[in-house]
Amino acid sequence: MISWKNLDTLAAYGKLNALKNHVNLQEVMSGENGAKRVAEYSAPMACDLSYNYAAKQVDDDVLAALAELAKEAQLNEKYEALYSGEVINTGEKRLVLHQLCRGQLGEAVVADGVDKRAFYLSQQEKAAAFANKVHSGEITNAKGEKFTTVVQIGIGGSDLGPRAMYLALENWAKQNGCFKLEARFISNVDPDDAASVLKGIDVSRSLFVLVSKSGTTLETLTNESFVKDALKNAGLDASRHMVAVTSETSPLAKSSDYLEAFFMDDYIGGRYSSSSCVGGVVLSLAFGPDVFARFLNGAAEEDKLARNADIRRNPDMLDALIGVYERNVQGYPATAVLPYSQALSRFPAHLQQLDMESNGKSVNRFGEPVDYVTGPVIFGEPGTNGQHSFYQLLHQGTDIVPLQFVGFRRNQAGMDVDIQGSTSQQKLCANVAAQIMAFACGKQDDNPNKSFAGGRPSSIIIGEQLTPETLGALLAHFENKVMFQGFLWNLNSFDQEGVQLGKVLAKRVLAHETDGALKAFSDLLDI
Amino acid sequence: MISWKNLDTLAAYGKLNALKNHVNLQEVMSGENGAKRVAEYSAPMACDLSYNYAAKQVDDDVLAALAELAKEAQLNEKYEALYSGEVINTGEKRLVLHQLCRGQLGEAVVADGVDKRAFYLSQQEKAAAFANKVHSGEITNAKGEKFTTVVQIGIGGSDLGPRAMYLALENWAKQNGCFKLEARFISNVDPDDAASVLKGIDVSRSLFVLVSKSGTTLETLTNESFVKDALKNAGLDASRHMVAVTSETSPLAKSSDYLEAFFMDDYIGGRYSSSSCVGGVVLSLAFGPDVFARFLNGAAEEDKLARNADIRRNPDMLDALIGVYERNVQGYPATAVLPYSQALSRFPAHLQQLDMESNGKSVNRFGEPVDYVTGPVIFGEPGTNGQHSFYQLLHQGTDIVPLQFVGFRRNQAGMDVDIQGSTSQQKLCANVAAQIMAFACGKQDDNPNKSFAGGRPSSIIIGEQLTPETLGALLAHFENKVMFQGFLWNLNSFDQEGVQLGKVLAKRVLAHETDGALKAFSDLLDI
Repeated sequence: MISWKNLDTLAAYGKLNALKNHVNLQEVMSGENGAKRVAEYSAPMACDLSYNYAAKQVDDDVLAALAELAKEAQLNEKYEALYSGEVINTGEKRLVLHQLCRGQLGEAVVADGVDKRAFYLSQQEKAAAFANKVHSGEITNAKGEKFTTVVQIGIGGSDLGPRAMYLALENWAKQNGCFKLEARFISNVDPDDAASVLKGIDVSRSLFVLVSKSGTTLETLTNESFVKDALKNAGLDASRHMVAVTSETSPLAKSSDYLEAFFMDDYIGGRYSSSSCVGGVVLSLAFGPDVFARFLNGAAEEDKLARNADIRRNPDMLDALIGVYERNVQGYPATAVLPYSQALSRFPAHLQQLDMESNGKSVNRFGEPVDYVTGPVIFGEPGTNGQHSFYQLLHQGTDIVPLQFVGFRRNQAGMDVDIQGSTSQQKLCANVAAQIMAFACGKQDDNPNKSFAGGRPSSIIIGEQLTPETLGALLAHFENKVMFQGFLWNLNSFDQEGVQLGKVLAKRVLAHETDGALKAFSDLLDI
Repeated sequence: MISWKNLDTLAAYGKLNALKNHVNLQEVMSGENGAKRVAEYSAPMACDLSYNYAAKQVDDDVLAALAELAKEAQLNEKYEALYSGEVINTGEKRLVLHQLCRGQLGEAVVADGVDKRAFYLSQQEKAAAFANKVHSGEITNAKGEKFTTVVQIGIGGSDLGPRAMYLALENWAKQNGCFKLEARFISNVDPDDAASVLKGIDVSRSLFVLVSKSGTTLETLTNESFVKDALKNAGLDASRHMVAVTSETSPLAKSSDYLEAFFMDDYIGGRYSSSSCVGGVVLSLAFGPDVFARFLNGAAEEDKLARNADIRRNPDMLDALIGVYERNVQGYPATAVLPYSQALSRFPAHLQQLDMESNGKSVNRFGEPVDYVTGPVIFGEPGTNGQHSFYQLLHQGTDIVPLQFVGFRRNQAGMDVDIQGSTSQQKLCANVAAQIMAFACGKQDDNPNKSFAGGRPSSIIIGEQLTPETLGALLAHFENKVMFQGFLWNLNSFDQEGVQLGKVLAKRVLAHETDGALKAFSDLLDI
């Protein structure tokens, strides 16, 4: 029997609170004990990734308290309830089924009279078949020319995840002979966004993927019109250049404006939709359906691991627990995501949405205010770039910011250069290793300006190479982490009521139905 | 006589502390009083921009305390000392002269026997003459073909600022007939970064700008070798394709490897170097020297405004003061930068460096630990994109995050579409106006999940259009804000000792001179 309780009502949370500042990171990470921690504090992830938490402020005492917390908060049971089809998104009375796009973790989930796994698979197959026809030349433009470019029109979850994934695999695909179509993305209602993308492509050979679950997203419909105008002005039939990804009940679903429509449903939230057709159509077109299938397999493997009851064999749950310890016990307000991989340049922006939109909430799942802090601010840029930017504050600022590193032993593009006895890839890896230790242990100096306090916790996910599989595992890891943290904070991580008020007021501005300060700002902006 | 004192030793700071939670934003921004605030709480900026702080948690009492603080902290005198050539960067014993690239605010500054304004101007002129020769075809590749692409190789301040500025003006330049060369950027030591850029360009028609003040930046020199290899493999003479931006004393300065060398000096920090040749060469090549000169003029105008003693006529100082009130009195740990302009997509990343690297410090300018918090975490993405991402946490999360909006009445590319009675540009502007009010006033709802507490402060910089001039003013505004905050916190905002330790340890890893945890991590990463 699952019971949904606030974090601060759990006995294990009290124990955890007593362990504030329990671990002296400078001390435990020094000398041979540090090496021992690196070996021991590592949890295997899917696809030969590993989650190393040696440089976190934990020891066996803290881990024991976290294990107790996991048990008392019923994290395993709640995850099982979620993937078995219970109504976990209580506010909107919806199931939460994004994992079902990549595998069947429990019994069949039947909703609205449909086996949902079969439904998601059918849409994947439809996307695969469509992509294959585009690649083979069975589907072409009116002149019979093959498409060369795919443009995703979407915003938020319909943009950030697919865009991050496309960039993550672009060089890999080129190197591995599976680069099919170049992808571009239009998201912002700022007309300069669409204008800039359209100027850079040959619209006559472009296929546009319109993504909106409801079929009513302001930005996306506006950009669709923008694109249709451009197609018309080029003398093209827009309906031969557009497909839709939407829900079966949306106004777009049965429109003749699209070559094809691919379906998702209300059980997959936007920020969790990369595994659905929202990511599947554009990525299958860009890299071929096999690459997308491999991505899903990697994610499915990680989802399986997330069922482990032993937190030391469950990196997703462990990451979540350590995050709550850092946020609620240690009191750190932000977390940085720092992939040492240029291909992951937009992965932090995706995680920013995933995490902040899911857990940036002040009421629990019953609508009652909570008395503790919830989701932190998430930000990040790839390393080593960040080292020459905001790392100064991370090393010597007055606040401690926990860090989430990601690193791979091999690069993707297969080009490298050897200078002063090491390759660029080795330099990249040497830097991330060095940073972990600099943050953890610091260094005293007679000049206080050159002193580093240390005691700044980090973890690292290490893998051989960023591939479709490891990208899938990485994405699933963070999705599952956020889910477990939502359980711990007793939040509904799957709605986003906080975005509504702005939409309502914006409509009022456009209808000129405002007064007071809103009218004054609208006047200043010439609306 | 200037005296450098810690913030918490100032009497005015005590008074300001007594004004914690003094203003109820929901209340003051409601009704006609809100409209009155929008009209009154606006400070003119250069180039017809304005800084509106109606939705900040200030009133005339708080503003009076801030004015007193500005006076007691001698902000005007310290700024004057800086632009007059005093050694403000005390740790490194350097002057701080980036403003001198754009104008002469005080008496001539002579250092090392040189009039520095004349020196910076001479380098600008050299860059302009070079760019004109490239554009006219006087300087070409070995085959006599014109260059089509310029690639900046640099990291940190040699990358983020110039890249943000290029993106900010790319569409504007295309629309206004001054788009000359396409620019690309290589920064990360990850070899996939350079590989990806090189695959996307015609190297035979590309000019590379190598930017490193010291001439010793690991990433930049590594990427230079990467590029030289690519040029060699293409049968090209690298020295006909490369220029350097560096200091006169660097090993690059007199090398015959470069077509030309442009100089900066130690008095311009990397993150403040966009106005120097670091930004000037690539932007003059991309858009022509006139566009870069217009950018400098906009910045110079803003620098002049920053001398005003009346804080209500000095938007840069006022923004700084309000930021310190929010950080140290109200206790907010982060600040979001949210430009409603797709062209400013990387401007937040630049400000992240500018701010966090300048003021992310724990010791004052005398090397003594400070007892108050300093620089906040800075992050941001363009709107409306962010609305569909992390705004959920900003609206309903447990922490309050102050917001810095930017908006323009007109877009850049001159294309737009009218849907449901409004253009995309109007929708964009309506959204930013709506967000300000949603954050400030919130909205009560019977369903607590749909309730918005409000009380979340923001400011907005409003302008007619993002142009070279307004971009210059915008950049100078934030540089000056960060400078004033450094004065208030009594920090040296112009060094970055916090980046050193990581570099030292990385070298040790590459030399295989490690033990303990560092060796263990290095082994895991196969170095």
